[in-house]
Amino acid sequence: MPQPPPAEPGMREEEVDTPALLLDLDAFEHNLAAMAALLAPTGTKLRPHAKTHKSPVIALRQMAHGAIGQCVQKVAEAEILAWGGVPDVMVTNEVVGARKLARLAALARIARVSVCADDPAQVAAIEAAAEAAGVRIPVLVEIDVGAARCGLPPGPPAVALAERIAASRHLSFHGLQAYHGSAQHIREPERRAAAIAAAAEHARRTVEQLRQRGLDCPVVGGAGTGTFAHEAASGVYTEIQAGSYAFMDADYARNEQAPPFRHSLFVLATVMSAASPHIAVLDAGHKAVPTDSGLPLVQGRERVRYVSASDEHGKLLVEDPADRPRLGEKLRLIPGHCDPTVDRYDWYVGVRKGRVECLWPVAARGAMA
Amino acid sequence: MPQPPPAEPGMREEEVDTPALLLDLDAFEHNLAAMAALLAPTGTKLRPHAKTHKSPVIALRQMAHGAIGQCVQKVAEAEILAWGGVPDVMVTNEVVGARKLARLAALARIARVSVCADDPAQVAAIEAAAEAAGVRIPVLVEIDVGAARCGLPPGPPAVALAERIAASRHLSFHGLQAYHGSAQHIREPERRAAAIAAAAEHARRTVEQLRQRGLDCPVVGGAGTGTFAHEAASGVYTEIQAGSYAFMDADYARNEQAPPFRHSLFVLATVMSAASPHIAVLDAGHKAVPTDSGLPLVQGRERVRYVSASDEHGKLLVEDPADRPRLGEKLRLIPGHCDPTVDRYDWYVGVRKGRVECLWPVAARGAMA
Repeated sequence: MPQPPPAEPGMREEEVDTPALLLDLDAFEHNLAAMAALLAPTGTKLRPHAKTHKSPVIALRQMAHGAIGQCVQKVAEAEILAWGGVPDVMVTNEVVGARKLARLAALARIARVSVCADDPAQVAAIEAAAEAAGVRIPVLVEIDVGAARCGLPPGPPAVALAERIAASRHLSFHGLQAYHGSAQHIREPERRAAAIAAAAEHARRTVEQLRQRGLDCPVVGGAGTGTFAHEAASGVYTEIQAGSYAFMDADYARNEQAPPFRHSLFVLATVMSAASPHIAVLDAGHKAVPTDSGLPLVQGRERVRYVSASDEHGKLLVEDPADRPRLGEKLRLIPGHCDPTVDRYDWYVGVRKGRVECLWPVAARGAMA
Repeated sequence: MPQPPPAEPGMREEEVDTPALLLDLDAFEHNLAAMAALLAPTGTKLRPHAKTHKSPVIALRQMAHGAIGQCVQKVAEAEILAWGGVPDVMVTNEVVGARKLARLAALARIARVSVCADDPAQVAAIEAAAEAAGVRIPVLVEIDVGAARCGLPPGPPAVALAERIAASRHLSFHGLQAYHGSAQHIREPERRAAAIAAAAEHARRTVEQLRQRGLDCPVVGGAGTGTFAHEAASGVYTEIQAGSYAFMDADYARNEQAPPFRHSLFVLATVMSAASPHIAVLDAGHKAVPTDSGLPLVQGRERVRYVSASDEHGKLLVEDPADRPRLGEKLRLIPGHCDPTVDRYDWYVGVRKGRVECLWPVAARGAMA
């Protein structure tokens, strides 16, 4: 069951019930404008990843800033976006299983929906679903450009699958998915740049080989918040799939030459125990702020460190007793990783200048299928 | 929004849509009976922790096996249980904030609801909420028996707070909360036993000092699935608060002399990419199976290891090509940590002998406030 909203419009931030997912609207709007300004001179389009925000409200704001559509990882996410008015959704992932593909094909009746494949059996299954629904589905070939996860090797294996897609009656070959996920969090700028240079070269050669076989490649998609400047400057990538730029994770801020975005997303938490002078305990553990990419930071309190998370408790180490958090005090945590954090909540509490301005549902919360 | 159920009763397990939270009903029922049998000779009562299962359906089944009530960590969890018919709920945690305390006091009108405190200011706040609601609330003093998280030091500080509670018109002193969380996952049996022996000694001495001050201590609560045999045998603890015993995490199975329960909870996942001979990729990453206590295990496939989780991808390393998972194949994952895993889903899919038998809502999913 969804949880009730933890706030009402007009409340002061310190009145919001906790744990709550706070969106600082000034910082969020800054980030949308900053990304648009950064990409404009490159000519590369932005297709933000909705696996980060899970919200048609946010998707439509990104598109008002020039984004051409949205990415998702799951059919259930694509449904929530398309039902919520997003006209163009790319599933940057393989979709396996007849039940899921039937849903995807049904969705193609109300929105432009594309999907990835890396296996001939998948191409056949997507074709069958498209035929049954009487739709035509654009399909991208996912290539492995360094992450060693999904995707065919670049070059001939990818070209062969593209030809198979192009030869399918209810599919069209839409391009290459060439995301290098593990490059996003490489700390050293030179190594990040080198990883993306290699990925772009794989994509460039595959596009060339497609052309030699008479196949046009309208889209080359990839990039995340950690590396997008390199893909955008490559001359190969046509669409940037960054998601975190809107919120800015603590972990992205740990990259050297970190991307120029502000932290806009926070978990508001309450000090629920301060029985010892050097320890305070928050009501937000790893169920409230997942720790897969490191522990959260405490905003504006450099002498207070979040040092361990259990299910429902976050332990703070107080390095300076003068800065000791009071029992009942509310603190903003900067999540290590915004994507799984957002997916823990039913509501964004939008705040500006200390007041609650809006409540946006995390409509695709838990949409994993 | 809640997600639709991924299955229908009567389906074969391999037809269930993924990712799905699977409950093997035979193993689950075995675990409930096994815990009842283990505790019976000790005379210690079982009050299972609902932060693990988040379900009134499961709570009532545990109580049919002799459990005297339920524990929770959050007021929102207490509400879901009490509204769902559970008559006795203990919040084994501090509750801070007037809004939350008013909800707790309202709940005391329909169920027996107790709560913990470790600060005089909290006692005053609970008293005010109880007075406003016209109820009497039993309050436990939380003592720190080794976890260095919430709780007062054992002995005189705890006794002083107990006296304050006993002197409050709308509160009653209910006992001590003495949970040693960090002891649960100590691997070596001797060190686990020593940690609990020390915790029990702290509790015993505090009970004695309470008695010297004329205060009866009806309840001493604590223990988890990793250590409960020691607390139950201590002669000090009256209530065992284990939760994971019903499901049995992969991480508890890594303890030496692991507790004697069967894995009953699984995440069912589909192989969505198998483009390389030594790698297969599941549609269940850390959003589907949180990794705070280690990666999941693949049930029944010893030569296939889950080696890394990203948001929506789980990478499998195939050590023996003969055991290579097929594209589209569904595998059962044993979660490293069941508590946060359950909290990712809206439905339990109960299976027995390969068929779906029931669908139980994870009614307190996301109940963090």
